[in-house]
Amino acid sequence: MSSFEMIQAAATRLRGHASVTPMLSSPFLDEIAGRRVLVKAECLQHTGSFKFRGGWSAISALGEAERTRGVLAYSSGNHAQGVAAAAKAHGVAAVILMPADAPELKIDNTRALGAEVVLYDRAGGEDRSVIGQALAQERGLTLIKPYDEPQVIAGQGSVGLEIANQAKAEGITEAEVLVCCGGGGLTSGVALALEGMAPGLRVRPVEPKGFDDVARSLESGEIQSNAEISGSICDAILTPAPGELTFPVLQRLCGGGMIVTEEEALRAMALAFLRLKIVLEPGGAVALAAALFHPDQIEGDAVIAVATGGNVDATLFQRAISSYA
Amino acid sequence: MSSFEMIQAAATRLRGHASVTPMLSSPFLDEIAGRRVLVKAECLQHTGSFKFRGGWSAISALGEAERTRGVLAYSSGNHAQGVAAAAKAHGVAAVILMPADAPELKIDNTRALGAEVVLYDRAGGEDRSVIGQALAQERGLTLIKPYDEPQVIAGQGSVGLEIANQAKAEGITEAEVLVCCGGGGLTSGVALALEGMAPGLRVRPVEPKGFDDVARSLESGEIQSNAEISGSICDAILTPAPGELTFPVLQRLCGGGMIVTEEEALRAMALAFLRLKIVLEPGGAVALAAALFHPDQIEGDAVIAVATGGNVDATLFQRAISSYA
Repeated sequence: MSSFEMIQAAATRLRGHASVTPMLSSPFLDEIAGRRVLVKAECLQHTGSFKFRGGWSAISALGEAERTRGVLAYSSGNHAQGVAAAAKAHGVAAVILMPADAPELKIDNTRALGAEVVLYDRAGGEDRSVIGQALAQERGLTLIKPYDEPQVIAGQGSVGLEIANQAKAEGITEAEVLVCCGGGGLTSGVALALEGMAPGLRVRPVEPKGFDDVARSLESGEIQSNAEISGSICDAILTPAPGELTFPVLQRLCGGGMIVTEEEALRAMALAFLRLKIVLEPGGAVALAAALFHPDQIEGDAVIAVATGGNVDATLFQRAISSYA
Repeated sequence: MSSFEMIQAAATRLRGHASVTPMLSSPFLDEIAGRRVLVKAECLQHTGSFKFRGGWSAISALGEAERTRGVLAYSSGNHAQGVAAAAKAHGVAAVILMPADAPELKIDNTRALGAEVVLYDRAGGEDRSVIGQALAQERGLTLIKPYDEPQVIAGQGSVGLEIANQAKAEGITEAEVLVCCGGGGLTSGVALALEGMAPGLRVRPVEPKGFDDVARSLESGEIQSNAEISGSICDAILTPAPGELTFPVLQRLCGGGMIVTEEEALRAMALAFLRLKIVLEPGGAVALAAALFHPDQIEGDAVIAVATGGNVDATLFQRAISSYA
């Protein structure tokens, strides 16, 4: 499993390749939330989401033989693009298994980044991990899982190292850190990084209503699944259940999960447009939505929200800003 | 007049208050431009534009008596917000003279940042500098001009110091630096900073078609004026003419001006949305538009474009992304 040392090593491999994303703020958002709000803008990461970090971390850790054979990833889109871009930069062939109902932009971008895209039917119940493992075996590819994978978790954890430094520079040593959560790769990586570097910063996962497997798992103490894994605009964070590697970390280090509605995610997108000048996708806006619209569930004078991605179609973005900006 | 030393001093006063904005890139933009494109994202600066730097620089340089009496600024909106926010942080009262046809968002934000807003009729030909100077005298306020003001130029020049460092980190020592240009405060400040720190980076001003006073002034060797200073979506950079302080700097240090159409500015906004996940206003997108759509007018393997601001109404932003994203 990932450790603080693995995160530090991944951060070293990422240096000069991944962007150190800024921590943004606006007095207008502080006023809505009733406390200072700092937004870690991972939408500004290469490929438009934090997933580039995990992809780069995993591929840069591969041996020569594995690199020659190529890699495979399954993803609703952001992990796909992250792995595709990292693979291309390393000269490694990438096959990406994507749900046919993923946003068109994400499918197109993954192809444009040089990967071979294979589509499957998410809504029809095909299990991507089964298809993915079969495909990997058949072609001799190394599978880079989207979250339940130590080097991926370590790469995502580099976000936590940056948060610790940036929060310290802002004079913040005690705060809740809200993270948009699917399978828990980023959430567990950030939690491990903060445990090592800034124990006063406590992570809380945020999910969309109806897809709150992590919140329910944390509450019950056992891994719980979602009834559905499609049918939300928050496509980036719809996963079946927390991972076997990520869940014990979430359980040990995270505070209770928070849940926001799709409408709240759209409102957070509009406010990020208006006040921070960044583009967020719905799944990348749920943590900011929780910070802004559920202040009573949060403790402390400051809150940090990780804005995880910005790969959104123009039509959906227009819906957010025409309704709420 | 401003000097490299004044820019360094301003950068010291700005430290911990202004954001060090990131330099963004995307392989998709590189492909369009046919060379590496680096985008200095000043839309992510406090108040949504680089103007916060000049406002902070000027106000932090005031003496105690001037601070007690208060400041006045005239601005189509970005300088207004920059001065208002900087004044508020220093506990200084601010009166802002704004054109009645400025974007509603900019007027509202300036008021919300605690400034008193006075509107005037730009289209009707009222001269803001005359009104501004009268108002300043009447109330004993210190006028902070939007560009022809040494401490403002010095503050904007801090963008150039950051560009020099960030370009070096990317291995770029020779490149053209395209800057969205109104009166030339940012353009001359960046040019002075680069002269001192990275002489291989050469600044070129970019303007919207029909408002190309700086390009014509550089070509003729004398200050030329615009026939109109309203009627473009690039409201942020519509100024009567280059300044008396800025023009000699532009003349000494800048390459020829570039000119883009409104449609190109809108297309650049859409591409910044899609590929960089940032929000640009039309006037803040003209440099990126020049980098992407006029590659034949640019020399070198890399180009740096300063994306100066993101204060755009939702309606206009929707127009850009629905047409071109």
